[in-house]
Amino acid sequence: MDLKNDSSTTIMDFRRKVKNFIDERDWNQYHSPKALAIALNIEAAELLEVFLFQSDDFVPKNLDSLTDEMADVFIYLINLVNSLKLENFTEIIAQKIEKNAIKYPIKEFSAKNYKKQ
Amino acid sequence: MDLKNDSSTTIMDFRRKVKNFIDERDWNQYHSPKALAIALNIEAAELLEVFLFQSDDFVPKNLDSLTDEMADVFIYLINLVNSLKLENFTEIIAQKIEKNAIKYPIKEFSAKNYKKQ
Amino acid sequence: MDLKNDSSTTIMDFRRKVKNFIDERDWNQYHSPKALAIALNIEAAELLEVFLFQSDDFVPKNLDSLTDEMADVFIYLINLVNSLKLENFTEIIAQKIEKNAIKYPIKEFSAKNYKKQ
Amino acid sequence: MDLKNDSSTTIMDFRRKVKNFIDERDWNQYHSPKALAIALNIEAAELLEVFLFQSDDFVPKNLDSLTDEMADVFIYLINLVNSLKLENFTEIIAQKIEKNAIKYPIKEFSAKNYKKQ
Repeated sequence: MDLKNDSSTTIMDFRRKVKNFIDERDWNQYHSPKALAIALNIEAAELLEVFLFQSDDFVPKNLDSLTDEMADVFIYLINLVNSLKLENFTEIIAQKIEKNAIKYPIKEFSAKNYKKQ
Repeated sequence: MDLKNDSSTTIMDFRRKVKNFIDERDWNQYHSPKALAIALNIEAAELLEVFLFQSDDFVPKNLDSLTDEMADVFIYLINLVNSLKLENFTEIIAQKIEKNAIKYPIKEFSAKNYKKQ
Repeated sequence: MDLKNDSSTTIMDFRRKVKNFIDERDWNQYHSPKALAIALNIEAAELLEVFLFQSDDFVPKNLDSLTDEMADVFIYLINLVNSLKLENFTEIIAQKIEKNAIKYPIKEFSAKNYKKQ
Repeated sequence: MDLKNDSSTTIMDFRRKVKNFIDERDWNQYHSPKALAIALNIEAAELLEVFLFQSDDFVPKNLDSLTDEMADVFIYLINLVNSLKLENFTEIIAQKIEKNAIKYPIKEFSAKNYKKQ
């Protein structure tokens, strides 16, 4: 169940890995959906901090801090998926992408009309 | 490349699907890492709003609003991965989990000593 | 123009103090409304972190970290007020409270019906 | 105790007005510091949403939505001050500004060296 690369690692691989981590430390009691939602927000803000007082097109030369925070956001999101015992998170994401595709038809939503996704 | 279920869908499947969506609408010009970090924070806050003024153990009866926001967070995170052209996000996550495992050894971090991950 | 206590210090006193601080360091060029909105979110998340994995009724014994973050949020908000050159922030707040009073009539919004402000 | 303008309205005026609003609706039971910290984050994110996918120097032509969210952030912050029964929030802010002044000496922190406050 080792996590190797983006092409071979499934959402379930992450779910199992993260579940195992939490179970081993008996942390389920702290991982209510609400607590995880709070944690997710804090990590998202730490990710945002990388861009504080930087210009719109800023990309950090060393990506380590940024990708570290991205991993934190991902891990808490997977923790939340597990905490809610969602049967199929992939389907939920796929349906949201589908909904977005209908909301923003390719023809109408040319870049120049675009304000906000 | 359809997204079916958690056991068969890889991170790369999502990366491709999301990339395709953005390319078709020519939205790359708006998707700077900074803009995506802002978007991620807004979606994380909308997710948190589900729990506003609710008790610690609250779980919504209808999960649709919550899972919808979780999908948004996931999609923006994958957009950020793509925007940064990360070669292997899976490895970054795996390394973070490894780092956490060293920081919180199973033996020492019994639940009762636990304050904050 | 010293800031002494809640009963004697006006919003304008804070606006002047904060404006002076920024002018002396020539930081106006960094303080676009958008940059300040980002900063405000980061400080709000640091404030929230005090409550991470804590119970609903948690109040820290030592309030210093929490009040420090509250001051940061306040200062960035005043910076934003100045950056937008708002003539009268007090009136804006008063009108919002008025709007809330109409939205949540005292008689109807007894505590037991209350979900979300 | 009417709130008129920035030059005449003190922090205590706001504290009293907001306390009165909450007392009349018996909402103190929902206003734990943790709940208010969550609410503050959600309002801060709504404020940030005004700038989503906008350029660094964006200022909305109509400021109403933005100032509305600023009022929400302010009101929740004052609610938090009240909830913690802080004796003197003004002094806390003044001390934070003092601390910042020492951290960022005027001479050294010329704008050109400035990265992040």
